[in-house]
Amino acid sequence: MVRKPLVSIVSAGLSKFGRLEGIYGREIFADAVKEAFERCPNLNPAKDIEALFVGHMGESYEHQGHTGPTLADWAGLLPKPAMRLESACASSGAALRTGIFAVLSGMHDIVMVGGVEKMTHRTTSEVTEFLAMASDFPFEQWHGITFPGLYALMATAHMHKYGTTEEQMAMVAVKNHHNGALNPKAHMQKEVTLEKAMSSRVIAWPLKLYDCSLITDGASCLILTRPDLAKKFTDTPVHIIGSGQASDAIGIYEREELTTLKAGRLAGQEAYKMADVKPKDLDIAEVHDCFTIAEIIAYEDLGLCKPGKGGSLVEEGSTTLDGEIPVNTSGGLKSKGHPVGATGTAQAYEIYLQLTEQAERRQVSGAEVALSHNVGGSGATAAVHIYRRG
Amino acid sequence: MVRKPLVSIVSAGLSKFGRLEGIYGREIFADAVKEAFERCPNLNPAKDIEALFVGHMGESYEHQGHTGPTLADWAGLLPKPAMRLESACASSGAALRTGIFAVLSGMHDIVMVGGVEKMTHRTTSEVTEFLAMASDFPFEQWHGITFPGLYALMATAHMHKYGTTEEQMAMVAVKNHHNGALNPKAHMQKEVTLEKAMSSRVIAWPLKLYDCSLITDGASCLILTRPDLAKKFTDTPVHIIGSGQASDAIGIYEREELTTLKAGRLAGQEAYKMADVKPKDLDIAEVHDCFTIAEIIAYEDLGLCKPGKGGSLVEEGSTTLDGEIPVNTSGGLKSKGHPVGATGTAQAYEIYLQLTEQAERRQVSGAEVALSHNVGGSGATAAVHIYRRG
Repeated sequence: MVRKPLVSIVSAGLSKFGRLEGIYGREIFADAVKEAFERCPNLNPAKDIEALFVGHMGESYEHQGHTGPTLADWAGLLPKPAMRLESACASSGAALRTGIFAVLSGMHDIVMVGGVEKMTHRTTSEVTEFLAMASDFPFEQWHGITFPGLYALMATAHMHKYGTTEEQMAMVAVKNHHNGALNPKAHMQKEVTLEKAMSSRVIAWPLKLYDCSLITDGASCLILTRPDLAKKFTDTPVHIIGSGQASDAIGIYEREELTTLKAGRLAGQEAYKMADVKPKDLDIAEVHDCFTIAEIIAYEDLGLCKPGKGGSLVEEGSTTLDGEIPVNTSGGLKSKGHPVGATGTAQAYEIYLQLTEQAERRQVSGAEVALSHNVGGSGATAAVHIYRRG
Repeated sequence: MVRKPLVSIVSAGLSKFGRLEGIYGREIFADAVKEAFERCPNLNPAKDIEALFVGHMGESYEHQGHTGPTLADWAGLLPKPAMRLESACASSGAALRTGIFAVLSGMHDIVMVGGVEKMTHRTTSEVTEFLAMASDFPFEQWHGITFPGLYALMATAHMHKYGTTEEQMAMVAVKNHHNGALNPKAHMQKEVTLEKAMSSRVIAWPLKLYDCSLITDGASCLILTRPDLAKKFTDTPVHIIGSGQASDAIGIYEREELTTLKAGRLAGQEAYKMADVKPKDLDIAEVHDCFTIAEIIAYEDLGLCKPGKGGSLVEEGSTTLDGEIPVNTSGGLKSKGHPVGATGTAQAYEIYLQLTEQAERRQVSGAEVALSHNVGGSGATAAVHIYRRG
């Protein structure tokens, strides 16, 4: 049996998300770290933080692997142990889970988890190729399919089986851009109309430009500690009360179904069970909207609605900022941006702000219980965490 | 406080190391996994193993990232959570430490840790470039320095400060090739004379061909569980009683000294302290001999001799199979081979064989206490583990 809460978040940081020119990923990470340290004046980082676990997806962008110690150096944490986790776009979701293991193990009391990616200095075709490394080489990449293509297959399957419409997918974009416009750190801080989203150019039918998340530079981090130590550092900790992770075949040709991500369902079930929380108990959620169809599938996989009803859920407005269960209050990957390695802990950062009433114009008043859902690739990895206001 | 032993190894597997043509890394990993399962008939892998942590250094070799779930699939472990750890050549040392966290955390009782790399299908210049990603891009790679060059700097510094000789470095190669010739899974199973090593072509002076480890394909894995569960699976568990990891600046230009790896020293100190073991208590050690100078520095960093005396230690024969403290009984990275992501848990595999008296012609009779020392890149990461016969 695992004690609950598992760990407490006592601080968090996020760099500006966007096109950050002329700097390295390590410098962007240092920006996120600076915010986390400033939020937590009682912490003596070099002394107190015992280890670093970072999500970083692609060594190709900056021709740089071995990012654990590199980022530890730029965070001022040398010679503490540091490791890079790579689980595609769920890299920092995996880093978060590893940080939880480390604290629960008794080997560390205070750790930093986070993630980073520097992408925008590369051409779109390079980024498309580098991202594709998270799909199966012999049976997917080799034949030329890319991530928009893989998610387009899921979208058409969902349309065919459930009658989900292109308009419903576009409504995810409209909602998330509305939220992103309220987030000063988002990459694209502007609203988009349904008409504009629907008439944007086709990337991989039925997915259009506005159905796709952004290529973004950014970094995120959290400071985790044992719940009994949290009050030393903050009056407003956020507890992590559930952690679930699961895997699926990397190639979608091996999946039983294309309209659901099995790893997402299983990770959600594990996290809910551990937290003793049900979907209806959630006040907010950050879900992995790498494509608009992914958010619709996430609703269903996480039990926010029944299978097949994700399109209706967004159409009814249930997931808007003032809906029954606001989803992606940050703007999501769609509008806040998707620096792939940073996304998992960036979701947790938004939840940290919301559960400590620091989300300003996008604050969901009184939010107490939240969920983050971070997917790797086309769903071979999913990591779900559940949080409670401390 | 952490309980001791931390975890127990109840099985282990290693693929053949070498030039394995016409297969993917995932298939090589499956070979290692098959051996681990066959050694442990009481284990029902798909049911009992709860998570997979794998070291994999380079997405570039096979244009394949997201190797956690890929390898979980080929190990028959889906839908269990799986993560890739990347800490350069210490990737599976980091995976091992993460597996220890996971078991100690109470969130998992039985996990697999391991690592893999498929390298030999690439040209030497590609491999040199891919490996270099573990060094600093702006201040090292960009200027053309490679790993043989970085270690050559350490070697010349060691020669200058301590009088270490080229012959002493070559003696490391002679010793490790002798051991590798006794290991049926080693890449190069042949002895080398001092004369041949000394007269081999210069790669980066003073390092010659025989001072460099091999470019190798291979995979390794271990099955870890709680010590109180170990006897369910085997009569001869091997306990892990200490784990240390530390970081240093990625660029060696930032280091205080070139004749020692600070991360190696600190990781060793942490592991010794946790295990309550002193260097003189060790019966055998597997150390990270990516270059012969690295083994000499490891002797010193791990306290097998005083600083500066590493060259003499090998010259006196203290680290041969029948010496006072046999080092790299497997043949080491030098002769067994160095499939980078697999190396950390391959060292642990050798120790598992030795402490369970299964090392055949290279068995060190009655070995009870052992150490593994796994270094990432030019020393920005080091992971040290200490083991005791169960």
